Amino acid sequence: MLRYSSRLCDLVRSSMRSIWTVSTCEHNLCLSHDQDDPQYLKFPFVWLRDNCQCPKCFHPPSNSRVIHIQQFNFDAVPKKTEISENHVHIEWTDKHVSDYPLSWLIERQFTEIGRKTWKENYGRRKQLSWTAKDFSRILKTFKFNKILENDNELYDWLEVLAARGVAIVEGAALKEGEVTKLADRVAFLKKTQYGEVFRVEAKPDTTNVAYLNGPLQLHTDLPYYEYKPGVNLLHCIIKAEEGGENQLSDCLAVAKAIKSTNPGTYSILKDTPVIWSDLCTEEGRSFHSVHISPIIKENEDGIIERINFSQPQRDSHLNIPLEKVQCWYNALRMFSQKLYSPEYCVEYMLEPGQILTFDNLRLVHGRMHYEGGRLIEGAYLDWDHIYSRLRILQSKYT
Amino acid sequence: MLRYSSRLCDLVRSSMRSIWTVSTCEHNLCLSHDQDDPQYLKFPFVWLRDNCQCPKCFHPPSNSRVIHIQQFNFDAVPKKTEISENHVHIEWTDKHVSDYPLSWLIERQFTEIGRKTWKENYGRRKQLSWTAKDFSRILKTFKFNKILENDNELYDWLEVLAARGVAIVEGAALKEGEVTKLADRVAFLKKTQYGEVFRVEAKPDTTNVAYLNGPLQLHTDLPYYEYKPGVNLLHCIIKAEEGGENQLSDCLAVAKAIKSTNPGTYSILKDTPVIWSDLCTEEGRSFHSVHISPIIKENEDGIIERINFSQPQRDSHLNIPLEKVQCWYNALRMFSQKLYSPEYCVEYMLEPGQILTFDNLRLVHGRMHYEGGRLIEGAYLDWDHIYSRLRILQSKYT
Repeated sequence: MLRYSSRLCDLVRSSMRSIWTVSTCEHNLCLSHDQDDPQYLKFPFVWLRDNCQCPKCFHPPSNSRVIHIQQFNFDAVPKKTEISENHVHIEWTDKHVSDYPLSWLIERQFTEIGRKTWKENYGRRKQLSWTAKDFSRILKTFKFNKILENDNELYDWLEVLAARGVAIVEGAALKEGEVTKLADRVAFLKKTQYGEVFRVEAKPDTTNVAYLNGPLQLHTDLPYYEYKPGVNLLHCIIKAEEGGENQLSDCLAVAKAIKSTNPGTYSILKDTPVIWSDLCTEEGRSFHSVHISPIIKENEDGIIERINFSQPQRDSHLNIPLEKVQCWYNALRMFSQKLYSPEYCVEYMLEPGQILTFDNLRLVHGRMHYEGGRLIEGAYLDWDHIYSRLRILQSKYT
Repeated sequence: MLRYSSRLCDLVRSSMRSIWTVSTCEHNLCLSHDQDDPQYLKFPFVWLRDNCQCPKCFHPPSNSRVIHIQQFNFDAVPKKTEISENHVHIEWTDKHVSDYPLSWLIERQFTEIGRKTWKENYGRRKQLSWTAKDFSRILKTFKFNKILENDNELYDWLEVLAARGVAIVEGAALKEGEVTKLADRVAFLKKTQYGEVFRVEAKPDTTNVAYLNGPLQLHTDLPYYEYKPGVNLLHCIIKAEEGGENQLSDCLAVAKAIKSTNPGTYSILKDTPVIWSDLCTEEGRSFHSVHISPIIKENEDGIIERINFSQPQRDSHLNIPLEKVQCWYNALRMFSQKLYSPEYCVEYMLEPGQILTFDNLRLVHGRMHYEGGRLIEGAYLDWDHIYSRLRILQSKYT
């Protein structure tokens, strides 16, 4: 574990070996050293003043900038700068005085390598796509009790979940409440209209197709939420007498394949808004959820941030111009064919005591028809809290 | 209330007065009538087949499409079409038979007016921006007990909250637990690292600047969450002896003003990623949340979907190239000056028993310095559930 955090530390540590001098040039403070590999780090005055660490500007217990933005001097200019004992001191023309540890500045350098290293360290993990042939290799199993007791096991489980989008936790007791214990190690469960936890079993008079014992098509859960659950926890308490295997496909791999062989189709999947909706009654309360989002949702950096897919919850209203309808269905056909193809789709039979954990923003999951009293307890976690836990664990050991 | 839903009904109702005939043209079913105002509605074959309402394709109790996408005939072509008793019947070349109520089809028409009306009806509301001079006019007050008992009052409160981003609920008891009752009428509270509800009061040794009695700068709550709470509920239980007024600015109005007078500045605020972070300990557990998002976050349609702003929780790491730093601070200066200017910023003194409810994705809020034992109970709701409740209430009365 902890391979990520070390990179940023390494960057700072290696820089700290040099002898640095300080100067100013234009609107920047300039740190330089003339070792074998000369380096110049520039820090804009306005940024330095904004991040002054003195008690008037910064409140350490809350780790917060406290200077009032209305009183902030956006035009501050240093009158005097010096470096001593690995600290940079600035006296500003308005008489304010600031002091920055050299290592603190180096960690915040505006260079490409500095910014990239920070992102790798504190941002979202790089996701590694997989296809069916990789599955047995990439599927890692973690011990339920070990996660509950050991931070390293917890960290490793969450790292694998972030990178691969799927992991098995085994050894949970054959009773309800185990997913809650698991979630408590991370933060807390995400509540939805189905409650904090939900029982997946055949129910009479259901308003949800998941509660029938027929096959459940490949889908993401709750695509009709803007704040769709990040991770599913499906705990097998009672296994079906026959059938009930889970199916999984990594949409990241499917999307990549389509993008490289059929870029036009990829664009249609990415740019066509689709209406996802759900009208249901849970414990006497009705919900009508609607969210509009393409099947492949990229963020502003072109990284896939969310996959939306669900036959039952794709609305009959298709809010696009007539002339775009046929092309979109052609794209849907290609996407769904790949999802189900043996190249991408795997089957996995959950054994009692196992918890299938997977990324609901990235993978689709399904279930085969079954017979007999299968019982799954399900719950959700959000990525906000998973990454928070990863950062805390990471900093604890560096 | 219910002005939204009626538009879609009106559209369908007025169309139903005509005598329609059915035909096919290219890949579409064509509905037409030759009244004074001739109209042609086209429905692609593939869409019709995808939305067949027969029991094999559609499961009414769950309101779900159940035909398996692997068995779906993407190339279905009608063999015979007819219209009778306000139903369109299709016999497909593969012998499948479909039947659609005429009104159901008209509601799903692919025309611009049809699609626009659907969006107004089921999508997110149009947000109406306001400045300080409008505030006394747009600020509506709703009765706590009436919301608890009366669906119309509940609907009206949520409508105002969606359109204006702020509303007062008054008449809550002077004890904790009232925000939970209010949330239960909508759906349920959104839990964060601060719990389901939180007490805002001066606390010793706090790791959160909100729990000091000093002035709290204008900010949005939890910008460091990807799933940032949608709506704040702040219930005044004990008023400060002196001070403690809330401040509010509608960032939608501020953003609009900047966009029209300084489009370059607007682009910088919209396109520059900012790191929002929080490192805190709540009841013995540590959290380190990080989210990267610009101050003004637009969706793919160019509509502002989220404002991020918080001095204390803006990270000291600024992950942008050096040459962009000064321009971004210039934009920050303009944005913050407008937020605090008397043109946009209002002050409001919450009285005991009042609950200030506002859109945390759109407004910034702050608080003046205070003296004495002020106590606020706070909580959050998500827009997913607010809109779900609006749709349910809307359909109940149409």
